[in-house]
Amino acid sequence: MGRDLTALFDPGSVAVVGASDDPAKYGHAVASQALRAPARRPVHLVNRRGGTVLGKAAAPSLVAIGEPVELVVISVPGAGFEAAVDEALACGAKAIVGITAGFAEAGPEGLARQQAVAARVRAAGAVLVGPNCLGIADNTTELYLASDRFAPGGVALLSQSGNLALELQLRAAPHGLGFSRFVSLGNQADVTLVDLVEDCARHEATAAIAVYAEDFGDGRAFARAAAAAGKPVVLLSAGRGTASARSAQSHTGALTTSADVVAAACRDAGVELVHTPREMTVVLAALSAGPRTSGRRAAVFTDGGGHGAIAADAAEDAGLDVPELGARAQERLRAVLWEQSAVGNPVDLAGMGEQNPLSYADTVAELLAADEVDAVLMTGYFGGYAASDGGLGGGAAGGSTGGGAGVPDGGSLLAQGEQRAARTIVTHLAAAPKPLVVQSMYPQSPSCRILAGAGIPVFASTEDAARALAAMTVRGAAGTPGLPALPAPAEPLRDAGYHGVRALLDSAGVPFPPAREITDEAGLLAAAAEFEGPYVLKALHLLHKSDAGGVVLRLADADALLTAYRDMHARLGASSYSVEAMADLTDGIELIVGVNRDPRFGPVAMVGLGGVLTETLRDVAFSLAPVPARRAEELLRGLRTAALLAGVRGRPAVDVAAAAAVIERVTTVAAAHPEIAELEVNPLLVRPDGAVALDARAVLL
Amino acid sequence: MGRDLTALFDPGSVAVVGASDDPAKYGHAVASQALRAPARRPVHLVNRRGGTVLGKAAAPSLVAIGEPVELVVISVPGAGFEAAVDEALACGAKAIVGITAGFAEAGPEGLARQQAVAARVRAAGAVLVGPNCLGIADNTTELYLASDRFAPGGVALLSQSGNLALELQLRAAPHGLGFSRFVSLGNQADVTLVDLVEDCARHEATAAIAVYAEDFGDGRAFARAAAAAGKPVVLLSAGRGTASARSAQSHTGALTTSADVVAAACRDAGVELVHTPREMTVVLAALSAGPRTSGRRAAVFTDGGGHGAIAADAAEDAGLDVPELGARAQERLRAVLWEQSAVGNPVDLAGMGEQNPLSYADTVAELLAADEVDAVLMTGYFGGYAASDGGLGGGAAGGSTGGGAGVPDGGSLLAQGEQRAARTIVTHLAAAPKPLVVQSMYPQSPSCRILAGAGIPVFASTEDAARALAAMTVRGAAGTPGLPALPAPAEPLRDAGYHGVRALLDSAGVPFPPAREITDEAGLLAAAAEFEGPYVLKALHLLHKSDAGGVVLRLADADALLTAYRDMHARLGASSYSVEAMADLTDGIELIVGVNRDPRFGPVAMVGLGGVLTETLRDVAFSLAPVPARRAEELLRGLRTAALLAGVRGRPAVDVAAAAAVIERVTTVAAAHPEIAELEVNPLLVRPDGAVALDARAVLL
Repeated sequence: MGRDLTALFDPGSVAVVGASDDPAKYGHAVASQALRAPARRPVHLVNRRGGTVLGKAAAPSLVAIGEPVELVVISVPGAGFEAAVDEALACGAKAIVGITAGFAEAGPEGLARQQAVAARVRAAGAVLVGPNCLGIADNTTELYLASDRFAPGGVALLSQSGNLALELQLRAAPHGLGFSRFVSLGNQADVTLVDLVEDCARHEATAAIAVYAEDFGDGRAFARAAAAAGKPVVLLSAGRGTASARSAQSHTGALTTSADVVAAACRDAGVELVHTPREMTVVLAALSAGPRTSGRRAAVFTDGGGHGAIAADAAEDAGLDVPELGARAQERLRAVLWEQSAVGNPVDLAGMGEQNPLSYADTVAELLAADEVDAVLMTGYFGGYAASDGGLGGGAAGGSTGGGAGVPDGGSLLAQGEQRAARTIVTHLAAAPKPLVVQSMYPQSPSCRILAGAGIPVFASTEDAARALAAMTVRGAAGTPGLPALPAPAEPLRDAGYHGVRALLDSAGVPFPPAREITDEAGLLAAAAEFEGPYVLKALHLLHKSDAGGVVLRLADADALLTAYRDMHARLGASSYSVEAMADLTDGIELIVGVNRDPRFGPVAMVGLGGVLTETLRDVAFSLAPVPARRAEELLRGLRTAALLAGVRGRPAVDVAAAAAVIERVTTVAAAHPEIAELEVNPLLVRPDGAVALDARAVLL
Repeated sequence: MGRDLTALFDPGSVAVVGASDDPAKYGHAVASQALRAPARRPVHLVNRRGGTVLGKAAAPSLVAIGEPVELVVISVPGAGFEAAVDEALACGAKAIVGITAGFAEAGPEGLARQQAVAARVRAAGAVLVGPNCLGIADNTTELYLASDRFAPGGVALLSQSGNLALELQLRAAPHGLGFSRFVSLGNQADVTLVDLVEDCARHEATAAIAVYAEDFGDGRAFARAAAAAGKPVVLLSAGRGTASARSAQSHTGALTTSADVVAAACRDAGVELVHTPREMTVVLAALSAGPRTSGRRAAVFTDGGGHGAIAADAAEDAGLDVPELGARAQERLRAVLWEQSAVGNPVDLAGMGEQNPLSYADTVAELLAADEVDAVLMTGYFGGYAASDGGLGGGAAGGSTGGGAGVPDGGSLLAQGEQRAARTIVTHLAAAPKPLVVQSMYPQSPSCRILAGAGIPVFASTEDAARALAAMTVRGAAGTPGLPALPAPAEPLRDAGYHGVRALLDSAGVPFPPAREITDEAGLLAAAAEFEGPYVLKALHLLHKSDAGGVVLRLADADALLTAYRDMHARLGASSYSVEAMADLTDGIELIVGVNRDPRFGPVAMVGLGGVLTETLRDVAFSLAPVPARRAEELLRGLRTAALLAGVRGRPAVDVAAAAAVIERVTTVAAAHPEIAELEVNPLLVRPDGAVALDARAVLL
């Protein structure tokens, strides 16, 4: 359901405390904006000196207004913030926007102050955005309580950076994008990113939710809210390269960086992850455009070879496929194009556009009709004839055979034909909707404006067009795996020793070879009598047993076991050991599955190639835990070294389904044990006929 | 030395054959351009109908002009091309630009015609650009013989695509870039890309050479010319994803794609490789700007956190390092900034810029002075104060604490301070030159124009700024390894059988274990008596011996050898076998080294991880052969799995130098044997105490 934020986004009345005529004060900027819609609701300005502010009588206090105020913006020096909040609550405020800084971001004392004031706000049944924020705006309710103006549109922007929000705002207009709402997240003392995503999901005028966040708060809840939003969520995130170093105590700990976790959560929740403001804008433009598809097979077409090749590469770089077209599609294209045209994919009109601009539209129609085409990328000169005609193109001839662009007579005819082609493309697309993105040297030309006006994304840069098309295709292709619920917490694990962890996993159905914990020679021999060799001997309670010489494999019989035990005991002096039946390693591959408990996103699973290559190759994949078997199999099949699983050079394929089942069990156990900071099975041996865990460890919080 | 192209780029007189008043004809566009500089040299128009063209008397033939013409542009229908060339040569032409299409690109017959006409041109001591080209231009000699106008500047553009050249021309101006020359390469029947790179290298007014090529002709010569150019060469290349499938007969063949070869040649020759017109422009802008450096340590700074984090990630994505600054640099920054500023890297003024715009300049000065900083990336709001003042910024407040931007009084002061900061940055940079690139939300603001006017690259997009900075740093960091000369061809290899290849490599100093080729049991036992076991038995003349069960390892003694031989002989029936001393594999890593002869670039080496992982991981590196040992070691150390070579998990490091020495020998042998299409040593076993080749094969052309 989520919190009711009506008082925040559509208050009956507003007051700006700290409103000022001093342009160096933020209270000046907010007050100026607040007054832009005087008819919508009463807007009160409060300045402790009274008098007038921005030509309007200012009240010396909230109380002095003499009537309740539903939303109060507080932009006063730090020391006065709490008093202002208390006064607002006393005056019946149901929503407070805290501009004032100097709280959690300033240290533990500020955090304590912030927590105290947030508690008072909640106790009063009100909500608080900030403190340390830059305000909010809602174009759908004419609520302007931030210094920036955001042009109206369908994007709700939730940002923890004022400057990045500003850059996004500046970049939006050329792409026809605008904003339904803007919220500066600030310190999220009360209203959190999660609350806002939930509210924007319900907000009819919001078509897409754009987020820049440095602190996700409850990251798991954010992922859940995004997955349930029913509209695109695009996350701009930094920190891939500067992730804080984590404890390298286990492989999982060493490899799990926060950027990996964010990426995994986004993939699981169907959030589009972007890395720059420019990419954010391109993806938003794509997602606000025409239809999306679950396929990733793109047709690229152009008139003049170079652009087709460049765009095909860019499309593949962006994660799309550019497969050769089938015989039937090629035949049909051949029927509408001329002899020198290339119809394989990329499709190259090869000068045909200059002979007959409608061939652009004919090609689009055929590509939309082809079953093997999920999406279309048109690239190159299109737009140039009309642009040159209108004087935008610098009088340049475009086609490989020259042409009359820039010349009134020939130019006009071509320009008219090109614009007719643009209109025909729009008609074709309406009749057979598939994602279509255009890259043009002349994105502002009349022909391209016809396309853009019909909602077809047009970009000047090939890489932008490819990225946009990928956003309209690949995300759907990967599907939204969905977010498995966290299992109810189980009885906490008390014994995090090796055999304790084995027992826990064993009871969850994770297969292990037979093993006995022993502390002396008698125990050793008794264990050897219980199951057959060859044996493995492990010294317990050592980190990285194998590095320390604490693991000996292939002990043929009880004698060999005893000899190894005596040697190991002399070397290491461990107090207990594990005697195990050695698994048959033939045709096996060692995997690793680990789960780390992330402070923001909860249990996060890592699966990958095990053994010495784990650290070297970092060929691992992450997902929020628990990981259902079907998803685990996808993760394994997506590894760079996945070909090993399918068998290479005559080796048989291994039982990936069995490994995936074990991964589901291990990650479910970890998710049910919040007291476990790290749980790891390494190696998880997967063979053609099953999977078995050969070692396991856990670290308690 | 290269060919003399003076008649091409600075002819004493010009004629356009096929000049026309019909704007649909290319001869119209070229003639119009040619007439732009009538004072520089005589320009004759030729149209077989005579009369006037473009208001100027046209000669009915070249002969009818009545005086020799040094350069002739031919834009006539295909059938008339050869006659026009012959007439031009008869009239004394020393340079011909062939616009006419329908030659090599149309099939074998066209190729034959093209070769014949090119031979006649050469025999006459003349040069020919094209045919099937779009003309040439030289702004330094007022020579305009293409349909496009290119603004003057320092870039020589050599392109095989008219539309891509057009896009580059459109993109150039906003970055302050212009062109010294433009050549449409066409079919390169006579004048080749290599000739043009060599000539542009000598051309004083050309500061950088930009190339789009689909056919490199003699790729090795192109790489050599680019490496020797003494000025930046930037190559726009497509085909990464659609490289034609190569024979998968050997690993090398299966993995070497033409895109890999182009990338290797560029790396070896110091050519900047780019993948889109946009990237081309960004890199050219960077390379035409200030100083370059061999370091890759970048300092990122901003005023307002978000941009710093985003830009730091982008810089790392572009191949730069963003290390934490040292204590001394942090201290010095601390002294000029305020308390809340971050001084680690990214450096974040955190609102200081709004208090004192000169803090931007102070920060630049300190970063330029820091030894651990090779290059500086400034990102975010800078430019906004002056932009808002001038009405460009939409009245938006930028800093995280708001501010008075957009408000006349405060704005003006900040705007003035910001422009003073820009001028001071220019001064600091002149005093202590290091690469400095700026990303700004307001790239057209007065402050940013001051920076750009002083040659500092300014971009609107973070990713462009990062790419530009990388072009100014990383290329130098990798260094230009230089292009080793091809060795003189050796006596051709006649016996490409296993022992023939071994003998060839052995004579070049490649170490192998002892081995004897045998054909029967007697020979087998004699071989076993010659050296000690354990032995390896290989069946010869099988592709992928090991897959077919044609290799047996660890045969302890002569008896085991004999048993294995009988079994193998019964199974495979091979006529000859190799008995070898088994190498000690302890702590060894298997590498692969192969050399493929590329039709364009000659022998190309591939080195990488050997064994079953070669195909799975594709963890390989390419370089033009021969590969000097020092370069081979760099390639090995650059592998993703390089950590394995240094020893992981307690394993000892292997002798990379020994492996590199073997790679030098193998690649030198391959380079000296043009008759060898593929030469491969796989595995090349490298151990802590040396390297030894365990198998080898060759395929003759």
